[in-house]
Amino acid sequence: MSIQQIFAPIQNELQQIEARLRETVRVEYIPLANIFEMLIGSGGKRIRPGLCVLATRFHPTDPEQAITLAISTELVHAATLIHDDLIDKSSVRRGSPTVNSRWSGTATVLAGDFLLARAADIAASIENFRVMRIFARTLMTICEGEIRQDFARAHWPPNREEYYRHIESKTASLFVAATEGGAILSGAPENEIAALKEYGRTLGMAFQMVDDILDFTADENELGKPVGSDLRQGTFTLPIFYYLEQDARAKTLGDFTGADIERLIDAIRNSPAIAAAKAEAQRTAHAARDALAIFPDTVYRRALIELADYVVERTL
Amino acid sequence: MSIQQIFAPIQNELQQIEARLRETVRVEYIPLANIFEMLIGSGGKRIRPGLCVLATRFHPTDPEQAITLAISTELVHAATLIHDDLIDKSSVRRGSPTVNSRWSGTATVLAGDFLLARAADIAASIENFRVMRIFARTLMTICEGEIRQDFARAHWPPNREEYYRHIESKTASLFVAATEGGAILSGAPENEIAALKEYGRTLGMAFQMVDDILDFTADENELGKPVGSDLRQGTFTLPIFYYLEQDARAKTLGDFTGADIERLIDAIRNSPAIAAAKAEAQRTAHAARDALAIFPDTVYRRALIELADYVVERTL
Repeated sequence: MSIQQIFAPIQNELQQIEARLRETVRVEYIPLANIFEMLIGSGGKRIRPGLCVLATRFHPTDPEQAITLAISTELVHAATLIHDDLIDKSSVRRGSPTVNSRWSGTATVLAGDFLLARAADIAASIENFRVMRIFARTLMTICEGEIRQDFARAHWPPNREEYYRHIESKTASLFVAATEGGAILSGAPENEIAALKEYGRTLGMAFQMVDDILDFTADENELGKPVGSDLRQGTFTLPIFYYLEQDARAKTLGDFTGADIERLIDAIRNSPAIAAAKAEAQRTAHAARDALAIFPDTVYRRALIELADYVVERTL
Repeated sequence: MSIQQIFAPIQNELQQIEARLRETVRVEYIPLANIFEMLIGSGGKRIRPGLCVLATRFHPTDPEQAITLAISTELVHAATLIHDDLIDKSSVRRGSPTVNSRWSGTATVLAGDFLLARAADIAASIENFRVMRIFARTLMTICEGEIRQDFARAHWPPNREEYYRHIESKTASLFVAATEGGAILSGAPENEIAALKEYGRTLGMAFQMVDDILDFTADENELGKPVGSDLRQGTFTLPIFYYLEQDARAKTLGDFTGADIERLIDAIRNSPAIAAAKAEAQRTAHAARDALAIFPDTVYRRALIELADYVVERTL
């Protein structure tokens, strides 16, 4: 099932979000305006905005508020992409040159910061204190997670608990901001807010696990970067932990460089570690589905369930 | 008059702020905790928190809210110091090594981002929407200003209007967040809010002009960096514009390097451009004083007036 099919019940809202996203990042200063136009205009799956709108759909909600929060989650996502590309020294994103490939490191960082500030401004305009604080905490969680990753880089042996903690702060926290925030805006009771929060958390974890698997298995042209980029940068992800369980030789992994690392990446992508990692992503996505058990069977709940399947089945 | 003497009427609040600032940046992750402890713990004049508290003093205000906003302005200030030191490649700040001198560029950027997010979280806890939006807009203004500066660097001829715009976004905007935000929290009528906003804006402009003059005239040991750092980095500040008016030879300034730049910095620091720039800073600080005319003569108004004098008279 395509993401468009899954999001069909909220198609109108997503169209409005698309138009409003462009308005939101319109700035006077031309170099900055061009960067945002390129970044926001070049699409993306809009999973976080979609999640946010769906999470509001179990109670009557002001559509304006839902759309506003959805936009702010996508802006945070865009900001983290800018910073990630800088950290990873990526040169292409969604078929366009990255900000860091054209600007100085400083300007790139500041462009991301500007989007974060804009996102905070948009989130504040909702005028819901609980949502605003979740939003601010999410930014803190993402930053702290990125700092931890930067320090943990190339640290041997890798720590599996640290990996889970990292993907939770890096990816799942923003999924949570979308689903928990949406639930709060809808006036849902606390048990439903908690359920949608848990759905967002586990869905986000599964999403990132699959991203980390695709970094080994996807087509290099589609990825837009070399296969095994994470490992090349000293970032150890889920497939590595399974590979280490299965192949004792990899225990010297920390010393691999040059031609050795090519062979190692090839060995991992052709090993059972990939299927094992995928099975774990599937179990995590199932936990996301399970969290929805308390909701009535509506098109919105069905969309959330389909999204949990999509997240692990996607090929990019 | 020392800053301690000026802030005497709000000494209790500043002590509370000092203690709470340390609590606020307490984080679990040790490397980050150490950095914040060093940065926040090593003092500073606390001008922005002081301004914020003073601005609330023309009407009865919840002291808790005033202190909370004050803390969030100081956290934003600390975050911009981290980013500025990275951009300027400074190695010492307040007698301690800078974050960028010990951490990677990435980690440094993220440490600043974390403080911004923490500041947003604190600001959100005040539960005043108007203040929250001013806060978010301030972050946007600061980021956009820094991006403009990065692009304008070493651009010849320098643009004086761009200089004013830059110091307004870089420095005055946060002074405004402190004074306008404080006034709003105090429930002041709109004309008083506007007056304190204008006070903050002009005070901030004067403050930055003096900073830019001190970059030429202060003692190298006290500055903690070489005299003329701004010019060395291709950033053209107020003294330069006056120097260009007076000395046509400097028109080739853009080409100066090496030994030439030492001679040029020396020429500027011994030229009438310094006194002319200082006179402009004084006029700007006077405008700040004038903005306070509508307020009754209280110890708090007197402190704000003294602060306007202090800002231009200080030697560091």
